[in-house]
Amino acid sequence: MIKKIYSDSLGLLTDLYQLTMCYGYWKKGIHQKPSSFNLFFRNNPFKGAYSVSCGLDYVIDYLNNFKFSKEDISYLSNLKTENGIKLFESKFLEFLNEFRFKCDLDAIEEGRIVFPNEPLLRITGPLYQCQLLETALVNIINFQSLIATKSSRMYLAAKGDPILEFGLRRAQGIDGALSASRASYIGGCSKTSNVLAGKLFDIPISGTHSHSWVLSFDSEEEAFRSYAEVMPDNCVLLVDTYDTLEGVINAIKIGKELKEKGKSLIGIRIDSGDLAYLSKKSRKLLDKEGLEDVKIIASNDLDEFLITSLKYQKSKISVWGIGTKLITAYDNPSLGAVYKLSAVQDEKGQWTNKLKLSEQKIKINNPGIHQVRRFFRNDKFLGDMIYDINYKANSRIMIDPNDSTKSKKFLNSNIKHEDLLKSIFKKGKLVYKSDSIHKIRRKLINDLGCLDNTHKRVENPHNYPVGLEKSLFEEKNKMILELRKK
Amino acid sequence: MIKKIYSDSLGLLTDLYQLTMCYGYWKKGIHQKPSSFNLFFRNNPFKGAYSVSCGLDYVIDYLNNFKFSKEDISYLSNLKTENGIKLFESKFLEFLNEFRFKCDLDAIEEGRIVFPNEPLLRITGPLYQCQLLETALVNIINFQSLIATKSSRMYLAAKGDPILEFGLRRAQGIDGALSASRASYIGGCSKTSNVLAGKLFDIPISGTHSHSWVLSFDSEEEAFRSYAEVMPDNCVLLVDTYDTLEGVINAIKIGKELKEKGKSLIGIRIDSGDLAYLSKKSRKLLDKEGLEDVKIIASNDLDEFLITSLKYQKSKISVWGIGTKLITAYDNPSLGAVYKLSAVQDEKGQWTNKLKLSEQKIKINNPGIHQVRRFFRNDKFLGDMIYDINYKANSRIMIDPNDSTKSKKFLNSNIKHEDLLKSIFKKGKLVYKSDSIHKIRRKLINDLGCLDNTHKRVENPHNYPVGLEKSLFEEKNKMILELRKK
Repeated sequence: MIKKIYSDSLGLLTDLYQLTMCYGYWKKGIHQKPSSFNLFFRNNPFKGAYSVSCGLDYVIDYLNNFKFSKEDISYLSNLKTENGIKLFESKFLEFLNEFRFKCDLDAIEEGRIVFPNEPLLRITGPLYQCQLLETALVNIINFQSLIATKSSRMYLAAKGDPILEFGLRRAQGIDGALSASRASYIGGCSKTSNVLAGKLFDIPISGTHSHSWVLSFDSEEEAFRSYAEVMPDNCVLLVDTYDTLEGVINAIKIGKELKEKGKSLIGIRIDSGDLAYLSKKSRKLLDKEGLEDVKIIASNDLDEFLITSLKYQKSKISVWGIGTKLITAYDNPSLGAVYKLSAVQDEKGQWTNKLKLSEQKIKINNPGIHQVRRFFRNDKFLGDMIYDINYKANSRIMIDPNDSTKSKKFLNSNIKHEDLLKSIFKKGKLVYKSDSIHKIRRKLINDLGCLDNTHKRVENPHNYPVGLEKSLFEEKNKMILELRKK
Repeated sequence: MIKKIYSDSLGLLTDLYQLTMCYGYWKKGIHQKPSSFNLFFRNNPFKGAYSVSCGLDYVIDYLNNFKFSKEDISYLSNLKTENGIKLFESKFLEFLNEFRFKCDLDAIEEGRIVFPNEPLLRITGPLYQCQLLETALVNIINFQSLIATKSSRMYLAAKGDPILEFGLRRAQGIDGALSASRASYIGGCSKTSNVLAGKLFDIPISGTHSHSWVLSFDSEEEAFRSYAEVMPDNCVLLVDTYDTLEGVINAIKIGKELKEKGKSLIGIRIDSGDLAYLSKKSRKLLDKEGLEDVKIIASNDLDEFLITSLKYQKSKISVWGIGTKLITAYDNPSLGAVYKLSAVQDEKGQWTNKLKLSEQKIKINNPGIHQVRRFFRNDKFLGDMIYDINYKANSRIMIDPNDSTKSKKFLNSNIKHEDLLKSIFKKGKLVYKSDSIHKIRRKLINDLGCLDNTHKRVENPHNYPVGLEKSLFEEKNKMILELRKK
């Protein structure tokens, strides 16, 4: 996908400090030291209680195509410090030029429900490689997971009604639209208006006409009749160019004319005004004329909160068009994902755990090499336990990292579990086959079904239990105390 | 630039409804009708009183490279309606395949201060072409202008201190980062961490090391010493991996060692905690040891409000690193730009004005073909007047569209003016030479200097006067009354 979208090499899609650090590791001769990094986020966005993993397919493409072009190397060779000294030795650039991805990558698959502090990606390999890849991996996973999460919230709010993603024009850049259309579909949208996203990602597309169409004719009625004439099988009429209810009356005329020709008006679209009032009024007008099958499509800065409110008001909207609020994740435009070193291997092959301190407890990372175990019973998720794969004594007991007096045991024999991180690359070789975007979308719908309703509320949801396996919890606490003592 | 970044043709980077409308215009034989569209926004973002135009260079590239590839046409030819009928006739696709851009494009140059309702782009040409280009033009200008505006606000808040853009990892997609790095630089950032943006757009880049570097060594002191050893000419030390003030003391040791070698520590970076307190404390520690030249760089979710507050608290920060809040325009993540048909030409070459009604006054567009005239005296901007280029009787009197009792006259002979929309394409031929990104950046700094301080306040700024030329105001009012009467 990456190769299909971007003509330039993406080797330089990184922060400069990743390159200066790589250079430092290389100069100090520690660049090959095996290391393990986790990519995770700290808080669910939108004041929700869950998130959706998304972006892995982009990550796979990015890693498969990662290289520095001749142009990239030449650019780097010309970089200078403020006092005019070359930033990088040419030997280092030769070394970079031979970069071949050699890490292990484990990841939670796309379309899974995920929670704060769970590694969405775990990357293990030479220190300089893990370091160099950080920025792009965070960029990709951060954004696409954010949008898939937002989309899933709107999907839940719409309670089975189709939602259409119309965000391209309001998106943050061209790829801010393309990758967001993909994530929105995974999150539960039915279709996108973005034709290029449709072509690139095999997403169903949708679209009829805008106000300009109406303005291009002498009257609304003429505009509607013309549209029905040229698009009798894809006829949705936008009714609010002048006066919405007058527009509905004009649309009804056209709906009847289509009926006489054995065709049918698919819907009307309302893009402004009081959507609750106008949709009810329009429904009545349509039904009275025997046009019960004509759908009412609404758009205009909709989000999960407004959809919920309109549902509560018993509005008669059958399809929801969503743009700005979804495509930019308007009320929480970054997931704030981070990428932290959690262990390094010494010369003897022994792993040493790593931990960054902070005054804020939430900013102290989990040390070690992690896996996420999800416990469930009869298709109901019970809790997620983060554990260290190198500990022999892993238990089925987890501690709440925010309140050590709270623990949870999964001892009952009818409780099953699944380890969420799957192997994607082994020593740089892809060992994973991605699912189709449609299968990913269905996977998420399935996961949402396994999540208790209390965690899915749009407002004030109940937290889902995520804990640290008991011995990992104890190891972390010990490390913090030792570092604080120093 | 577009061609350098994107390998795929961008012909399909549009909403499906643009294509269905084009098809409709073509079927009705009105597709060649000369039409005029304006791209504008309705409100300044961030509760500010001005915005910054940005993105024209991308638009030029997009238009210069606009075409449908064989693959695009084949994709379109396979689209079907819900009942399985081909969406487009093959003759129409042949017509699309021969698309050659033939419009006039006028635009406000990049790096200019702009205001609501002013056309940033005015495109005049065959109806189907103007229609087809809408979505991509809005996407590009909307996002880049938003980010340039946000960046300029931080630039003003920093009062001459350098600001560094670190947003890549938190950006909305890959291009959400690339184009935002460009817009951020135009808006006033000094450098970016995004190496690819540096290469593609000739922006200065910056970067040193992160927490991972410190964690990769046995102690912070060893990590700092190693960094200074390998990067003696680009040495900024991140001091908050364990304890910030302990970190400063370690950095001071290294600063002195560098001094002995005739080198110097450029700065320390603080990425967490109370930045006011820590920067003052660090400054004292550094100064006491004769390291007065060592800069204090701060980062951690900074924006113009926090910068203003830290300045007010007399913090000792000399360089500001900004990421998430800038790159996503966090508190207002879309400019909400729109694109409206405002006039069409009849067979006799006569222009008819077009106007879309709305219950909300702000959503009623201005009819006609517009230019924006900026009045100024001695490098002070006095007001902007939107006028119709086809009116003979244009005056120097403008009416406030939100309050018709308010007018402004620019009659004094020492008042000069400039028309902001410049000719970019004429009948599809590029007639404009873009400035370098550095010149654009300076142009904005110049414009900001001409804008009264009351309009530049971070909070509660005073509105800048923008009005409709008297006869345009009267024409608009007449049209609204006529449409409402119908």
